[in-house]
Amino acid sequence: MRQAEFDQPYRGGFVGPEHHYALTVHFEDTDAAGVVYHANYIKFLERARSDMLRAAGADHLASHRDGLGTYVVAEVHIRYRRPARLGDDLLILSRMAGLNAASIVIQQRVMRGAELLAEASVTAAFLGPSGRPQRQPADWIERFRDLDSCSQ
Amino acid sequence: MRQAEFDQPYRGGFVGPEHHYALTVHFEDTDAAGVVYHANYIKFLERARSDMLRAAGADHLASHRDGLGTYVVAEVHIRYRRPARLGDDLLILSRMAGLNAASIVIQQRVMRGAELLAEASVTAAFLGPSGRPQRQPADWIERFRDLDSCSQ
Amino acid sequence: MRQAEFDQPYRGGFVGPEHHYALTVHFEDTDAAGVVYHANYIKFLERARSDMLRAAGADHLASHRDGLGTYVVAEVHIRYRRPARLGDDLLILSRMAGLNAASIVIQQRVMRGAELLAEASVTAAFLGPSGRPQRQPADWIERFRDLDSCSQ
Amino acid sequence: MRQAEFDQPYRGGFVGPEHHYALTVHFEDTDAAGVVYHANYIKFLERARSDMLRAAGADHLASHRDGLGTYVVAEVHIRYRRPARLGDDLLILSRMAGLNAASIVIQQRVMRGAELLAEASVTAAFLGPSGRPQRQPADWIERFRDLDSCSQ
Repeated sequence: MRQAEFDQPYRGGFVGPEHHYALTVHFEDTDAAGVVYHANYIKFLERARSDMLRAAGADHLASHRDGLGTYVVAEVHIRYRRPARLGDDLLILSRMAGLNAASIVIQQRVMRGAELLAEASVTAAFLGPSGRPQRQPADWIERFRDLDSCSQ
Repeated sequence: MRQAEFDQPYRGGFVGPEHHYALTVHFEDTDAAGVVYHANYIKFLERARSDMLRAAGADHLASHRDGLGTYVVAEVHIRYRRPARLGDDLLILSRMAGLNAASIVIQQRVMRGAELLAEASVTAAFLGPSGRPQRQPADWIERFRDLDSCSQ
Repeated sequence: MRQAEFDQPYRGGFVGPEHHYALTVHFEDTDAAGVVYHANYIKFLERARSDMLRAAGADHLASHRDGLGTYVVAEVHIRYRRPARLGDDLLILSRMAGLNAASIVIQQRVMRGAELLAEASVTAAFLGPSGRPQRQPADWIERFRDLDSCSQ
Repeated sequence: MRQAEFDQPYRGGFVGPEHHYALTVHFEDTDAAGVVYHANYIKFLERARSDMLRAAGADHLASHRDGLGTYVVAEVHIRYRRPARLGDDLLILSRMAGLNAASIVIQQRVMRGAELLAEASVTAAFLGPSGRPQRQPADWIERFRDLDSCSQ
């Protein structure tokens, strides 16, 4: 039934150790220079990372909702290579690049077909209910390790 | 192949005369009240309308890009019924509710399952390169009429 | 001392019964059509309303922070007349147009000099900690009534 | 007259070699974690840089509007130290840290009183009408050099 297909929001997923997240550029993402506004790539990256955590089996939204701990972005380093435009179909590729007790580092690339539009390294820290850094749940760390080993 | 599936951005589509567009609420959409920020529903509605035009066969992005004319929002009337929250899967239902030479009226509802979260009426005017109202392309009007007749 | 002047964020204020709030259009506000994206006017209106409540003596941010109740937008009806562009200086004029036990109605206009760019009517409902409609604090209602009488 | 005061949008300015830009955190800037959403700091930084260029005498908006060349962000490196919250008054401090023929590097800090909330280094490239890197206008380079010498 076609209805069921349309009614299911997009989910990305892993292809080996790399998470794929596709999206289309809407008017809201662009600016008067006719291209995607630079801060909006940071939103795209977060959509992809959030989906990546879900796909890896780390339900960070439930953890946040239940007051058990939440990820916050501690550092972003992004290089913009080529502009994206209205209507472009983009693919965000994300890969776990560092794993510490209370933080993760994710490498991300924004692609339009074979073209690299932007590349970023993002560090996310896990904070407990008090707002202090807290060890990530043990099973999440296991799952993140498994991702890493996939790449070998 | 799974890769191809992930690499395809979401597209909504028509179920009879009603267009369906599904999305998931991300951190960027929420505010400090813990719910979707009211102005961000307006962005959701525009994503759905843009996809609705595409699905109806009116390539308004190409028209905009080629300088042939573009839609601008002339009026929005939205009522907020219940809040949406982080991680919610929403469905935007859109229906052509009025068709004039140089404008369209679209009725839209934001649903979470069977719950109505918001309902809106949006008027979009078609403007020519000069920024003046301009008759919509004849084949678009045909296609919009066909949508209407579907509902009978 | 010039430093003190720069270090003070902008605050609007009342001129008679009408609240004035000025802002400049930034890249982030615009879209690929070269004008302010329609949903971003809704953000402008909220900045103005928030400042209006503060100027009227209703400290809704403290009320929200202390869990005593918060305003949520229940309805927005906006008409877009003329586009605003990058770098434009805009003035948002807001006026209390309706006062009920648990809600207010505010009429707002977006001006560029003498030109009317958009006009809106916004209903905000006051919700208690449970998320249910709740009577607005009595002293706020007094202050809102005073605004009204100013206009006579 | 008070009206004139309210009707003037905020402008920041230089205190020695350092540009000051003040703003207040609105609902639109926050997310469900109750703090400013990380991508929105990037918007704050751009508002400050845009005002910094204006204050330095480089009218980049006119240059963009007249098709003579425009700045695009080429690289952002930001570290988030402490969260900002709804209603906070923030001060963005910006300083020219690098000056090349076709690009500038700006160091920026987001302060809440004496607290450092975030610090960033942003590289902006000047692009000509063709979208290729282009030498910045000679008088802008002069002005940027003057800023630098102020700090000695």
